Amino acid sequence: MNPGDRIRVETDSQTFEGILLPRSELEDEDHITIKLDNGYNIGISIREGHIEALGTEEHLQVFPEIELEKKEGLPEISMIATGGTIASRLDYRTGGVHMLMEPREIFFTTPELAELVFLKKVISPFRVGSESMTFKEYPILAELAARELNEGVSGVLITHGTDTLHYTSAILSFMLQNLHKPVCLVGAQRSPDRGSFDGAMNLICSSITAGYSNIGEVVTVMHGETSDTYCSVLRGTKVRKMHTTRRDAFQPINGKELARVWPSGTIEYLSDYRGRNDTEVTADTTLQEKVALLKAHPNCNPELLDFLVDNHYRGVLIEATALGHLPTDTVNPEYSWISAVQRAREEGVHIAFATQCLYGRVNPYVYTNARLMFNLGVLYMEDMLPEVAFLKLAWVLGHTENEEEVRQMMLHNYAGEITMRSPVERW
Amino acid sequence: MNPGDRIRVETDSQTFEGILLPRSELEDEDHITIKLDNGYNIGISIREGHIEALGTEEHLQVFPEIELEKKEGLPEISMIATGGTIASRLDYRTGGVHMLMEPREIFFTTPELAELVFLKKVISPFRVGSESMTFKEYPILAELAARELNEGVSGVLITHGTDTLHYTSAILSFMLQNLHKPVCLVGAQRSPDRGSFDGAMNLICSSITAGYSNIGEVVTVMHGETSDTYCSVLRGTKVRKMHTTRRDAFQPINGKELARVWPSGTIEYLSDYRGRNDTEVTADTTLQEKVALLKAHPNCNPELLDFLVDNHYRGVLIEATALGHLPTDTVNPEYSWISAVQRAREEGVHIAFATQCLYGRVNPYVYTNARLMFNLGVLYMEDMLPEVAFLKLAWVLGHTENEEEVRQMMLHNYAGEITMRSPVERW
Repeated sequence: MNPGDRIRVETDSQTFEGILLPRSELEDEDHITIKLDNGYNIGISIREGHIEALGTEEHLQVFPEIELEKKEGLPEISMIATGGTIASRLDYRTGGVHMLMEPREIFFTTPELAELVFLKKVISPFRVGSESMTFKEYPILAELAARELNEGVSGVLITHGTDTLHYTSAILSFMLQNLHKPVCLVGAQRSPDRGSFDGAMNLICSSITAGYSNIGEVVTVMHGETSDTYCSVLRGTKVRKMHTTRRDAFQPINGKELARVWPSGTIEYLSDYRGRNDTEVTADTTLQEKVALLKAHPNCNPELLDFLVDNHYRGVLIEATALGHLPTDTVNPEYSWISAVQRAREEGVHIAFATQCLYGRVNPYVYTNARLMFNLGVLYMEDMLPEVAFLKLAWVLGHTENEEEVRQMMLHNYAGEITMRSPVERW
Repeated sequence: MNPGDRIRVETDSQTFEGILLPRSELEDEDHITIKLDNGYNIGISIREGHIEALGTEEHLQVFPEIELEKKEGLPEISMIATGGTIASRLDYRTGGVHMLMEPREIFFTTPELAELVFLKKVISPFRVGSESMTFKEYPILAELAARELNEGVSGVLITHGTDTLHYTSAILSFMLQNLHKPVCLVGAQRSPDRGSFDGAMNLICSSITAGYSNIGEVVTVMHGETSDTYCSVLRGTKVRKMHTTRRDAFQPINGKELARVWPSGTIEYLSDYRGRNDTEVTADTTLQEKVALLKAHPNCNPELLDFLVDNHYRGVLIEATALGHLPTDTVNPEYSWISAVQRAREEGVHIAFATQCLYGRVNPYVYTNARLMFNLGVLYMEDMLPEVAFLKLAWVLGHTENEEEVRQMMLHNYAGEITMRSPVERW
């Protein structure tokens, strides 16, 4: 039997029925994977099961195609496809999930786009799942987005896996200097073969945002509620994936929604944003590779920081507890981080703290513990998300290692990542 | 001039006025710290400022004391004081923040307690700020709580700093086996010298919970709203500090409030809980020290895991992205975690994944990436919070290193840490 065939597998304890998927290069030969009717894939050991072929489902093999035509009066946008659920489709001949390979294919899941915008280009610079993104991919995205915007499109869509979509929106917010057009990160929490597919509405709303909105920032455009009502346009530096599966997983943190966009075309602006104009954008993409992120917790051992210093890391973002604390108690000296932080600082390693609470702001002035770290030159990242502060540190250290310049840049508000008073919109 | 004196400091740019605090052992001699009238402390370099003494504020030196008397008919509770803002008071003679040293002192901030419960004992086993807690302190708390409950009190209060209060509520949930009385973790987000002090109401509501409620679990009892309306009683394994300063910072994650408690004495039960009875509780306190927590992010280097394996760590909890993913892409082989995880597993290191989204559930069956990790024996921690899964791993590995036993224990629901369907109460 072949991938795409419907099969039934009987094991000692259970019976599974679904479509046989092609074997991934990551899987060994003792296992097969089938897509169950509920949309989930399951891996089963062949050794323990009896397999029965149920035939190929003919009706699934036909996939609609539509023609693209440039329509007068529609705004032009470009799309950069990086991978992820949004830019995938189930190939029913093989049962496998495929990346979209051609511009036209995006219309398979969302034909309505053709009425809204003219999709000038779909660029697929690499295929990397969002959980595997590195500092190699970010500059490529920034350069492409800048090029497309400077060539005159109204906005750019970047289709992206949702795992790290908010990391990418943050780093692009720093890299795209003098940005005055919308760059929309868009993804899907559910795959196109499922009834609950959210990618179509997200694509429609992000196209409206890219083509028609007045917002000149890097934003995420994802479901604002679990139902198909509207999408929330969220600032790229103030957003986080807060749920594994909910369609409204992307939530504003220490910030407000910039706008809500309805698939009908309505845009409701809800807070201040940088406006749209035709100024040239530049991509400022140098990153320092040797930057790490650590999270503080009870019994956390400072030897982790020592290891990073030994291995020539230049910056470390620490998710400190609450207002920005690390263990310092002399009662448990072997777990105190004072010496390790002091040594790191002496060796010129830049250390920044953000809060693992996520909401709220670090503050070195309340407790002695924090003032001590502050006096060692630890940078307190205000109300920045840890993920955002981590990427900002890598970006800043790509530009300078001068102590005072690093401090100034880290505490400079480039893209709304620091607010003086953090509104908590949803709680 | 002496600590406790009111002083004015003039620097080139600013003037500060407040109470001189005693110099901490952590501070150098060039700095002084003053408590400003808004309640915050600020450190100032002496070299650059001119200091003027404004005298001692006499009226602040008197502190009320009340007598304790055992009242018939009131439930008996015991209190374990560990430190933190809740168990502190500003000594206006010296200006310093002091731990409560005697049982009676808790009534200084909250005299109403005497009408509600009979405080049989206040035990102060150690003084460690909550950001500095280690695996040495947890067994002490569990042993003391078990002893007090078995000696007949209705419930136990543990006053605690808020930074890691939810870590402590989680580990005690695992350590206190066969628990059928309330063990209430209680803290304060604002200090007793501030008008917005929340500790008094939290103490009252936690005393009501410990003395009168039917709940036989480890819970946190903290403000349910920013105003002084009621406290939320939250399951110790399903709670997290989600804001640095808000009084309602403690929020249920993947769980519902167990109850609301009003200072008037009303208890409103909102979801299922383990009930109260007089069965003996046992403290099962063995922890494996060599357990670490890592957080995945773009460009995260697997050498961190290698370092832990080299250093004989026995378990690692990884905050994976979304449904439980780590970088595996062959496009960026030097950042793929496959070899490092494989090596760790071959050397018998137990690896568990929880989601950095916090809300929702990890699931190894959706994407190939996760199935691969699952096939390497990575444990997928369902809807457990990363912090909870980290502590559970340390507790489980304190009992066994047998592969199958570890798996069974990690996926066994001991204290409501795993739910089959996670309600999202607040969003």
